[in-house]
Amino acid sequence: MQNIQEYVRQTATAAKQAFYTLAGASTAQKNATLLLLAELIEQHQNEILEANALDLENAEAKGLDAALLDRLKLTEKTIAGMSEGLRQIVALPDPVGEMDEFRLRPNGLQIGKMRVPLGVIGIIYESRPNVTVDAAALCLKSGNACILRGGSEAFNSNMAIAKLITQALLENGLPAGAVSLIENTSRESVGAMLQSPDLIDVIIPRGGKSLVARISSEARVPVIKHLDGICHVYIDKAADTQKAVDIAFNAKTSRYGTCNTMETLLVHQDRAAEILPLLAEKYREKGVELRGCDRTLTILNNIKAASPEDWDTEYLAPVLAVKVVDSLNDAMAHINLHGSHHTDSIVTESYTDAQIFLRMVDSASVMVNASTRFADGFEYGLGAEIGISTDKIHVRGPVGLNGLTSQKWVVLGNGQVRS
Amino acid sequence: MQNIQEYVRQTATAAKQAFYTLAGASTAQKNATLLLLAELIEQHQNEILEANALDLENAEAKGLDAALLDRLKLTEKTIAGMSEGLRQIVALPDPVGEMDEFRLRPNGLQIGKMRVPLGVIGIIYESRPNVTVDAAALCLKSGNACILRGGSEAFNSNMAIAKLITQALLENGLPAGAVSLIENTSRESVGAMLQSPDLIDVIIPRGGKSLVARISSEARVPVIKHLDGICHVYIDKAADTQKAVDIAFNAKTSRYGTCNTMETLLVHQDRAAEILPLLAEKYREKGVELRGCDRTLTILNNIKAASPEDWDTEYLAPVLAVKVVDSLNDAMAHINLHGSHHTDSIVTESYTDAQIFLRMVDSASVMVNASTRFADGFEYGLGAEIGISTDKIHVRGPVGLNGLTSQKWVVLGNGQVRS
Repeated sequence: MQNIQEYVRQTATAAKQAFYTLAGASTAQKNATLLLLAELIEQHQNEILEANALDLENAEAKGLDAALLDRLKLTEKTIAGMSEGLRQIVALPDPVGEMDEFRLRPNGLQIGKMRVPLGVIGIIYESRPNVTVDAAALCLKSGNACILRGGSEAFNSNMAIAKLITQALLENGLPAGAVSLIENTSRESVGAMLQSPDLIDVIIPRGGKSLVARISSEARVPVIKHLDGICHVYIDKAADTQKAVDIAFNAKTSRYGTCNTMETLLVHQDRAAEILPLLAEKYREKGVELRGCDRTLTILNNIKAASPEDWDTEYLAPVLAVKVVDSLNDAMAHINLHGSHHTDSIVTESYTDAQIFLRMVDSASVMVNASTRFADGFEYGLGAEIGISTDKIHVRGPVGLNGLTSQKWVVLGNGQVRS
Repeated sequence: MQNIQEYVRQTATAAKQAFYTLAGASTAQKNATLLLLAELIEQHQNEILEANALDLENAEAKGLDAALLDRLKLTEKTIAGMSEGLRQIVALPDPVGEMDEFRLRPNGLQIGKMRVPLGVIGIIYESRPNVTVDAAALCLKSGNACILRGGSEAFNSNMAIAKLITQALLENGLPAGAVSLIENTSRESVGAMLQSPDLIDVIIPRGGKSLVARISSEARVPVIKHLDGICHVYIDKAADTQKAVDIAFNAKTSRYGTCNTMETLLVHQDRAAEILPLLAEKYREKGVELRGCDRTLTILNNIKAASPEDWDTEYLAPVLAVKVVDSLNDAMAHINLHGSHHTDSIVTESYTDAQIFLRMVDSASVMVNASTRFADGFEYGLGAEIGISTDKIHVRGPVGLNGLTSQKWVVLGNGQVRS
């Protein structure tokens, strides 16, 4: 292979060119491409599974861990899921070209906004081959060209899928450059993407925290990123007991490895003695380890003391930090200081406390009387998500099609000049 | 002074703390602060002018150029303008807390969005002391804490203004950390800001292209930036002659040094022979130098030939590149390749050509039959702007109060848990 830097930049140049074609593609053309891809994936299921078997064999030979093998493995069911996901994206409204917020100015100009694609999106991901399909489809539907840089473990699976994407594009009159898979899985190809702000408009990393942190720190291109999810449930003084127990139990135990899982439970001091024992019993049955603050330890026996690091830890495991707080203000100060600005929920019957919490907690999702586990694109009605942003600019929380677009200004005149 | 890195981080830590107070401040409290500041500036006009005189003296002694001295210089009129600007910002609606887009989900959750401040905004600027007031006021009104790092030339002027800002904040019960002026004007203090993504949420550079380019390339913090304005007017085959002449003349000559000034004129080949001589005559009278493509040179005599660099140059001067194009597509390809995605306008009576141009030109502002000179916050009805973004994520074009905010998700439940 030629010089890697040069290869990545040639690919990105083709993507930029393809973007201008894609930005003007009709919704029908984009949908037809996605539907054909769904069919091609079904028709070529065996080729994809064979390529995936090769990847799994290599990964096992390298001694990669079981969790990674699990993320890498495709089955007939996961492949059917890819096609189903494509059909769901087809069903979503096309955001590109939507016009809004027009105002008539005193000089007769009509000034408003039009929703437009961002341009070229670089997706850097690890071992999940289904990201290849999801990311390509969301970018295509939102009018963006994309450059996919998957992990080396999934190389053969990704190549098999990319071949079908190219076929679907070309058969629908769209340029192959609209979706490119980088066929080099060295660190250098990632570096070349991160250093090309002239060609790539935004990078979206999808993977573990260390990957995302490295990309954010090295990128010269804007990054929409998802770092950790240290989510809280705060049981307010005015909480309904049953809702508090149900929500705190669900937010921790419905799944342990997801970013919207509660990692720290905060309880108002006036309710701790009543509610913590009820919850502790349920957590104990479920095998959740509790780590409590000093006041929690006076209420619950036989649990570990929390260390200062516990308040800043995303366990992704059946472990929960528990803290008794003096007040709503105390709870919010804890969340804003120790949380990751991902998702936080208050359980309360107090209108005023709910309003204060919603306004003052600086997180991508703030909730009242609901489990933090609802924070995802599907539950929010976005239909599909390319990730969950923990950034504060551009887009917060679940990122759907709109998050892959921006708005430009449209000025409609009839000959106006400025004096 | 203590270690600069440490000093900047302490300031940013105080700003982050102040942000949480500010995010919950009422509109009335923020407006009262801005109105008091307007009064204080009027009352202390002489102190500001004396500090400014000292800055001017130092700048002259250092032999700084006339353009810089002009940007640095304050007068009674410019100081009155600061207070007037503050009162205009008071009159704007407060975006913070606005809720929108609520949808009822099948499980009974009400899910929508709330507009919220970004957090701590770092403003890095050069010699204009009025930026100190404008930036502080826009950040305050939008609920953001800000850290101002002005240029060394304006140090005394900025200190005099910052003292009044602190007084206005404290007298209205807001923390002094809500607006901090970095009292160190070395490169190192800029570096410390750029390397603090944990404390500063976004950096907005205001100044020349070299400052902005350096900041963008070094920043670990997201940047909302304004690079160059290589704006185009395209005179379409279906243009009205009078509108074409008026707009192309105005877009170049109403001011030369602004980013929304036209730098390249594109003319459809079928209209060039008719329209270019009319325009050339007007430009000649005004002293604008023309640089033409080969076809332009066959129509206009005595003008220079354009070199390839001319198509990529922001002159900010009475110079204009002129190119005859084959078609609308040719014009759009030129704009998307050579423009800076700032502001571009088509002159046409064709509905279809207008629609295609609006959709396919990838610029922050796209216009039909209007001078590019309208691209600014005041003309767009934003009331005031902190800059004009040439970025593609978060905000494009003139950045007003909304551009300094983001939207978080609000989820209103009544006990829902996820199955």
